[in-house]
Amino acid sequence: MKEYKLALVGATGVVGREARKVLEEMQLPIEKYVFFASSKSAGSKIEFMGKEYEIQELKEDSFDEGFDFAVFSAGGETSKKFAPIASTKGVIVVDNSSAFRMEKEVPLVVPEVNAEDIEWNHGIIANPNCSTIQAVVPLKVLDDKYQIKRIIYSTYQAVSGAGKAGIEDLENGIQAYTNGGDYELAKFAHPIFNNCLPEIDVAMPSGYTKEEEKMINETRKILGKPDLAVTATCVRVPVFNSHSESINVEFEKEFDLEELISALKEAPGIMVENDLENHQYPLAANVTGHNEVYVGRIRRDFSVPNGINFWCVGDNIRKGAATNALQIVKYLIEH
Amino acid sequence: MKEYKLALVGATGVVGREARKVLEEMQLPIEKYVFFASSKSAGSKIEFMGKEYEIQELKEDSFDEGFDFAVFSAGGETSKKFAPIASTKGVIVVDNSSAFRMEKEVPLVVPEVNAEDIEWNHGIIANPNCSTIQAVVPLKVLDDKYQIKRIIYSTYQAVSGAGKAGIEDLENGIQAYTNGGDYELAKFAHPIFNNCLPEIDVAMPSGYTKEEEKMINETRKILGKPDLAVTATCVRVPVFNSHSESINVEFEKEFDLEELISALKEAPGIMVENDLENHQYPLAANVTGHNEVYVGRIRRDFSVPNGINFWCVGDNIRKGAATNALQIVKYLIEH
Repeated sequence: MKEYKLALVGATGVVGREARKVLEEMQLPIEKYVFFASSKSAGSKIEFMGKEYEIQELKEDSFDEGFDFAVFSAGGETSKKFAPIASTKGVIVVDNSSAFRMEKEVPLVVPEVNAEDIEWNHGIIANPNCSTIQAVVPLKVLDDKYQIKRIIYSTYQAVSGAGKAGIEDLENGIQAYTNGGDYELAKFAHPIFNNCLPEIDVAMPSGYTKEEEKMINETRKILGKPDLAVTATCVRVPVFNSHSESINVEFEKEFDLEELISALKEAPGIMVENDLENHQYPLAANVTGHNEVYVGRIRRDFSVPNGINFWCVGDNIRKGAATNALQIVKYLIEH
Repeated sequence: MKEYKLALVGATGVVGREARKVLEEMQLPIEKYVFFASSKSAGSKIEFMGKEYEIQELKEDSFDEGFDFAVFSAGGETSKKFAPIASTKGVIVVDNSSAFRMEKEVPLVVPEVNAEDIEWNHGIIANPNCSTIQAVVPLKVLDDKYQIKRIIYSTYQAVSGAGKAGIEDLENGIQAYTNGGDYELAKFAHPIFNNCLPEIDVAMPSGYTKEEEKMINETRKILGKPDLAVTATCVRVPVFNSHSESINVEFEKEFDLEELISALKEAPGIMVENDLENHQYPLAANVTGHNEVYVGRIRRDFSVPNGINFWCVGDNIRKGAATNALQIVKYLIEH
């Protein structure tokens, strides 16, 4: 069996750190790992699979030594510069940034949904936005059965989605609340502790944020429905990790609610927790550390002929980033 | 000018305490105030308008001494028992509980929306659910201009809506996080710190929570549209005070977005903060302590012909409870 070489770019960030954990759990047939970061982190040591590794500085010649795969989680600018360099050297890049997601020749992949799109890659495969990934896993199941007509997203997104600085803002807010004192915001425009911020990523001319536009456009691309009616309101909440989403869906076809729930239960990558009377529904604090997408509060929306509301929770750093990217690597290895 | 007598029932609870502040600010022509609570709080002393008052125990003969108005904020059971007693003795009751809201002969009133319904009261006027009150203030303006066809609510509700025990759960969660240690949940089925709970009030046979059914049914009653298409997902978030709401609305009529925003700006009781580029939108932490409903993130929903998304924040203890109830008292005094 062939053994592979994998580069992890952005290995010391929030996603990179989790990717190392997921790699340890997945036990892929990879013989060599190299961990890259910016010059700031280069030289520092990490433990991985019981061995010590030194973080390497990412440079233009970093991919000369030959890799099979590179997973990029170091932000859009790093991806824009280095992903094309890697791919021209024959490395297949799985990119976590938004840099290439909407490019026509770049597949945008959630393995449970459109793994087949991996096949036509030209060296770069894009990992979708975290809030989109967790939503499309159940939505694909429902689209196949009942044909989705319209989606309305309202999100409850964790601070880890904004990286270390986002986590720091919540942590500092909690500490200032309990111990007094002031702090400077590292990431958000307003304090996130004791607040809900309806702004994620930058403002766009449409009046939507970039995060909202990503959810709308990426949902269409992944489901292969370029004209699908989708709208979104993306909100940051004072939760450390795992995004929650209130999703309203309208279908073309009629459905039986029990059958719909069964279809979700049978689908890979989905856990159904749907027992309101016994207070069972997905919760951010419980989903953290899991690779699956959790759904619950599944109920008919009586305001349209064929609609439902449901609640969807995913670990945005795992399934929303690291896990999904490494599932793509796994698919590449197995096919 | 006549001077009135007002009874405040549940004077020591979260809403009762805020009602005392609002009364101090409003300076209504009330000559006598009596503060009632359960036997547990009776006898304790409070400061009000510079004078000391003793909390009275609420009893069946409490209304014998003659009141013009009684504001009830002591939960459904107290209202069910004592509000009819008060009203048969000629007291006009403004009831904050859900006990009478959907009764045909009880007006359900948000003064900015349907003050005229106060006129046909039969002794009890119901104050709507907190999350409904803040939503219908802007929705009424939009319904009058563009005729609402469908509403989809997703809420981000503060723990103060669950009273002292709800506040305690968040406070204890924060303390346990910073200082270690365990705590017992006083109110919620799960920890609210670092979590979003898609369950407010009890489960109903429909698969919705009672809070969600309240939002649906009370919106219809207040707007006077019994068949309006409305759906809701109600979620508790780790915020101490002020509810935020993501509201999607579809209209029968076409609209011009600038005109729509102007209509909201001109309406009484509404503050518009709608400048995403400059990070200006309503925030729970900032709205706390204010009586107005704040709206922002107002933008066209491109997934339907005539729709918008907007973000709505209100102090659930003020406009969502105490302020609204006392605005009803003020209307009664002035008319």
